[in-house]
Amino acid sequence: MRDRYVIIMAGGIGSRFWPLSREEKPKQFLDILGTGETLIQQTFRRFGDICPEENILVVTNAEHKSLVKEQLGISEDRILCEPLRRNTAPCIAYGTYKILKENENAVIAVTPADHVIDNKAEFKRVINSGFDFTSEKEALLTIGIKPDRPDTGYGYIQADNDLNINGYKDLFKVKSFKEKPEIELAREFLKSGDFFWNAGIFIWRAKTIIKAFESYLPDINLAFAEGISRLGSEYENEFISDIYSSFNSISIDYGILEKAENVFIQSADIGWSDLGTWGSLYNHSKPDSSGNAVVRGNIFAHESEGNIFSLPSGKTVLVQGLIDFIVVDTPDALLIIKKEEEQKIKQYLGEINSLKT
Amino acid sequence: MRDRYVIIMAGGIGSRFWPLSREEKPKQFLDILGTGETLIQQTFRRFGDICPEENILVVTNAEHKSLVKEQLGISEDRILCEPLRRNTAPCIAYGTYKILKENENAVIAVTPADHVIDNKAEFKRVINSGFDFTSEKEALLTIGIKPDRPDTGYGYIQADNDLNINGYKDLFKVKSFKEKPEIELAREFLKSGDFFWNAGIFIWRAKTIIKAFESYLPDINLAFAEGISRLGSEYENEFISDIYSSFNSISIDYGILEKAENVFIQSADIGWSDLGTWGSLYNHSKPDSSGNAVVRGNIFAHESEGNIFSLPSGKTVLVQGLIDFIVVDTPDALLIIKKEEEQKIKQYLGEINSLKT
Repeated sequence: MRDRYVIIMAGGIGSRFWPLSREEKPKQFLDILGTGETLIQQTFRRFGDICPEENILVVTNAEHKSLVKEQLGISEDRILCEPLRRNTAPCIAYGTYKILKENENAVIAVTPADHVIDNKAEFKRVINSGFDFTSEKEALLTIGIKPDRPDTGYGYIQADNDLNINGYKDLFKVKSFKEKPEIELAREFLKSGDFFWNAGIFIWRAKTIIKAFESYLPDINLAFAEGISRLGSEYENEFISDIYSSFNSISIDYGILEKAENVFIQSADIGWSDLGTWGSLYNHSKPDSSGNAVVRGNIFAHESEGNIFSLPSGKTVLVQGLIDFIVVDTPDALLIIKKEEEQKIKQYLGEINSLKT
Repeated sequence: MRDRYVIIMAGGIGSRFWPLSREEKPKQFLDILGTGETLIQQTFRRFGDICPEENILVVTNAEHKSLVKEQLGISEDRILCEPLRRNTAPCIAYGTYKILKENENAVIAVTPADHVIDNKAEFKRVINSGFDFTSEKEALLTIGIKPDRPDTGYGYIQADNDLNINGYKDLFKVKSFKEKPEIELAREFLKSGDFFWNAGIFIWRAKTIIKAFESYLPDINLAFAEGISRLGSEYENEFISDIYSSFNSISIDYGILEKAENVFIQSADIGWSDLGTWGSLYNHSKPDSSGNAVVRGNIFAHESEGNIFSLPSGKTVLVQGLIDFIVVDTPDALLIIKKEEEQKIKQYLGEINSLKT
């Protein structure tokens, strides 16, 4: 248990959740589901009885350090600050070297800060099993979600059924990684039964992933290996700033997992969603009897269905004749957009910002 | 000039403008057009150079006295408080007796507090002319608006063209009053050319309207006549409470104007609207290039037209795919309703309130 660590990746900016999320307060720091906890608080608590709390590290953008401290109440040496966004590979290398310096035998679970998982008991079982498996075996373990629809918004991992690992239920060798597919291909993936959504949750020994960095991302590995003495010192931030500016932006999937030979997948039925869009929030929330999903607020709906409402706490909404819209209200901004057009939000915001400058 | 008085009737509750108007702050006390002034402030200022400011009285509900004082800054003896809503006849009798006690030769213009008038120069010309006419003649003068559409939401006044009064432009004897008509009849009214919208603005000598009260509403008249010594005394409020509870609710139109013989109409082209509905606000406001009427706020509209937005100052709205809706946002409530269904707001609010109790 004391060798178990968690790296929470909290560097996202969640621009699609405007106006609820903003650059200064991205999605992971919001109570986007109206549960009373922010997404990062839920993520942190989810690992609470899986590993020692002091073994949970958060990697975030430097400007969000105080938000992490405020929301999780953890000590500053557990909050790793990135000066620049460089995708997941540098982030994971940073967290891993930090952990490696204090525990050479560490086994690490890596998780995004802003996903939701409904089945906490099953999640715990799966992660515990993953820690056991990767403690025994020099493996890079991914968590795969069995698709229930041909979603084109996720990456897929193909499992090799013939290599089912003895003693571990629903654990397979990985055959291939697939980028977000077109709808036709997504339908085939769904039908085939051996493709899983890549949940972005990984488990491995610190030494195993470092060995993979040595092989596939040697520049990143070398930068950290050479400077490991600075981690935990007063020069840490300066050191990190220096090396980050030399890194390319690269994901752990593309940089390592798609290339390595020792990658496995644990299929998990844990009620997972990455809450990547307002639409996914609708799918995840339970719509009320009028067919509207409501986060906070008091809604009185007439001849209205298929809408998502995200409201300030205590706000009353009277709505009539609205079908399949997203309505997000905050004190200084209101969004009303057709659900099927939400991918346009980013473009519209670009136009608004260009008008303001 | 010093005989000229104005009675501003400010007793309305404007329930149709929810959530902007509430019982505690009805429409006349709101800047519903986003001009920087509330409707009652605009009304007060409109008469500023037509009669002495100290000759302007406001009749309002007792609970709104402090709002009147705050918004107009007039002395308390100019604010007449009604304990109960009893429509316009008791309200006008109260104001008239109050004025009569200080000036027997008073000529009085009566006006609602919550209408808008765009053409202020023409309004001034018409009211001045009306004061002149009623000073000379024992007449009850109404202001009529030439219809530009077959509106079924207004009462109509039929002018008798044959009795055009010499020397006063567009001033006629009244032939009949018509309640809000069905659409077919409204179309005929529009076509005929001798029907005008009843703007609820009246001008008459104090003595002339009192004589009409004596004839047509003798109970109301007697109550005030007998208690006139109490007006302006410490017993005024008590006296008014007593007599108001004995009054029936009755309008000046129904109680007097439809019956009297000496009723005239001044046709006026003054850019009038009673702002009775959100729809009328749309007609009155100038929709922007995207066909949306926006009161306050910064709107970014895509594939959206025919909407009315009433927003808190400074609020940003991003809207896509919304056609012909009313969107009213306030800090604690949001309304989104199809423009054609706005008459349902009252019913919906009844349901909300019954759920809360």
